[in-house]
Amino acid sequence: MPDALPPDEARLVSVIGAQLAAAGRPADLSDDCAALNGPTALVTTDTLVEGVHFDLRHDTPAQVGAQAAVQNLSDLAASGGGPGWMLWSLLLPRERRTEAFVAELTAGFAQTCARFDARVVGGNLSSTPGPLAIVVTAGGPLVGERPLTRTGARPGELVFVTGPLGDAALGVFEPARRAARHAWRPHLAEAAVIARAGTVTACMDISDGLLIDADRLARASGVTLAFDARAVPLGPACAALPDAERGLRLALTGGEDYVLLFTAPRAPKGLVCHAIGHVQAARPGATLLLDDRPVAAAGWDHFVLGSGEVR
Amino acid sequence: MPDALPPDEARLVSVIGAQLAAAGRPADLSDDCAALNGPTALVTTDTLVEGVHFDLRHDTPAQVGAQAAVQNLSDLAASGGGPGWMLWSLLLPRERRTEAFVAELTAGFAQTCARFDARVVGGNLSSTPGPLAIVVTAGGPLVGERPLTRTGARPGELVFVTGPLGDAALGVFEPARRAARHAWRPHLAEAAVIARAGTVTACMDISDGLLIDADRLARASGVTLAFDARAVPLGPACAALPDAERGLRLALTGGEDYVLLFTAPRAPKGLVCHAIGHVQAARPGATLLLDDRPVAAAGWDHFVLGSGEVR
Repeated sequence: MPDALPPDEARLVSVIGAQLAAAGRPADLSDDCAALNGPTALVTTDTLVEGVHFDLRHDTPAQVGAQAAVQNLSDLAASGGGPGWMLWSLLLPRERRTEAFVAELTAGFAQTCARFDARVVGGNLSSTPGPLAIVVTAGGPLVGERPLTRTGARPGELVFVTGPLGDAALGVFEPARRAARHAWRPHLAEAAVIARAGTVTACMDISDGLLIDADRLARASGVTLAFDARAVPLGPACAALPDAERGLRLALTGGEDYVLLFTAPRAPKGLVCHAIGHVQAARPGATLLLDDRPVAAAGWDHFVLGSGEVR
Repeated sequence: MPDALPPDEARLVSVIGAQLAAAGRPADLSDDCAALNGPTALVTTDTLVEGVHFDLRHDTPAQVGAQAAVQNLSDLAASGGGPGWMLWSLLLPRERRTEAFVAELTAGFAQTCARFDARVVGGNLSSTPGPLAIVVTAGGPLVGERPLTRTGARPGELVFVTGPLGDAALGVFEPARRAARHAWRPHLAEAAVIARAGTVTACMDISDGLLIDADRLARASGVTLAFDARAVPLGPACAALPDAERGLRLALTGGEDYVLLFTAPRAPKGLVCHAIGHVQAARPGATLLLDDRPVAAAGWDHFVLGSGEVR
């Protein structure tokens, strides 16, 4: 159909369409809007910029496409949503405007979406004089009765994570361990158990680092979170580091783990999760404690670089 | 709430929150997802990149913010949607990372959204080593029974536009006439009449230029569209040009008019619109005719620059 549109854009759109079909999820990319076929209760958007969030010297285009899907599906999970639809906007610099590159990027994105039952319904292509950027918007239905938020943690509850931490960050600093970074997945299945349990009082995903994200949850709920360092589960690569302190530091401050952080009176039934601390009444000037000592909310923030090893 | 997040991002988020509230539409920007309170049937995404789609030497930040809202609301209108929710992702280069700039940009975006009854529910901030980019996703309910698409035009029908053309493009080339560019608005009210009429067979918005967009509609429907040059309504600034041919050329190939192009057996009742041609059976090798002569689908495509005056 788009064979007489300006060749470059039309060709790239057809390359994207072919990859969506190859992932088993063909989409109609021809109208001004995508029409949805199910309810949408939650929406979220997130961005990856080359040189800020990924590095094509170390990551393949397919891995970057997968990352774009994972981080948005993880946000849906964090709010108690199920998979629904995905839109993506590609800002393509001239040097990335090849069929092979767009096909591989799309394949990684589309296959990850398909694997987690999300439907890519459309998107937008734009040229840019700047770096490659991928902006994804995801929407989906609620799994439980209402969204999970960051605001309900109460003193006396426990703090949990749904998986080990630190390996994604280790993969950033050590190219030889790059595979550790790409073991990430959105914790949608865990989120479904959490949302149905009805006992979880606050939830978010860990995308910038345990401490910086926990600080956000603590502030939103008006509490202090007290962590037990020995209870923080390290990813296998971090656990195998000769320098044990470094492994813990990566688990506390490394980003991109995409596991869920939540508070509840007890572990939801049937959920594999790790109790890593408990909720206390707010302490003036200390939203976070680590082994009973106040600890700063350090982590990955692309507006404030220079937080040590964490980029 | 976010006072101890890294100051730059937290501060900018609070600046954005203040502008949304000032526009009469406060939003909760604190969770991983935004929760919606109405049905979503249509979603769309579109991008503005500095140096490609706008020029801050000639446009104010508020005008750019308004443009980001208009182009996405126009896409909703084109598919027969009503206003719903908006998410935006800002890619901010260092030189634009000031409170004043973000406040003015947000004010233009938020006020335009509020004016057309769309709710800004959230977004994302990212730093970038590249140019400023604004990626908006819009969702909304259907006004009629089903979405309007580009595929249903049939020979014998008339071709209409819902407003005059060319002034937005003229404003790009002549800074003294820049105001002509910013007279744009999404034709949501017209779309509602069209969607309810039930007689419109194909519809899209004109964002890249009448001819290039009409070519897309013609191909999607498998027809040829025959235009009458004298019937094409020129914007007031184009109509006042001493060079009448230039005015017509801008109306045919200039982008960003954001009026609706549609086909129907007759004008929908109660809609101010202009019949500019008619639908013919597909002619081999000629999807568009102008005064009975084949005409090329020239217009604004940021992947294929150099189409004469049209950037």
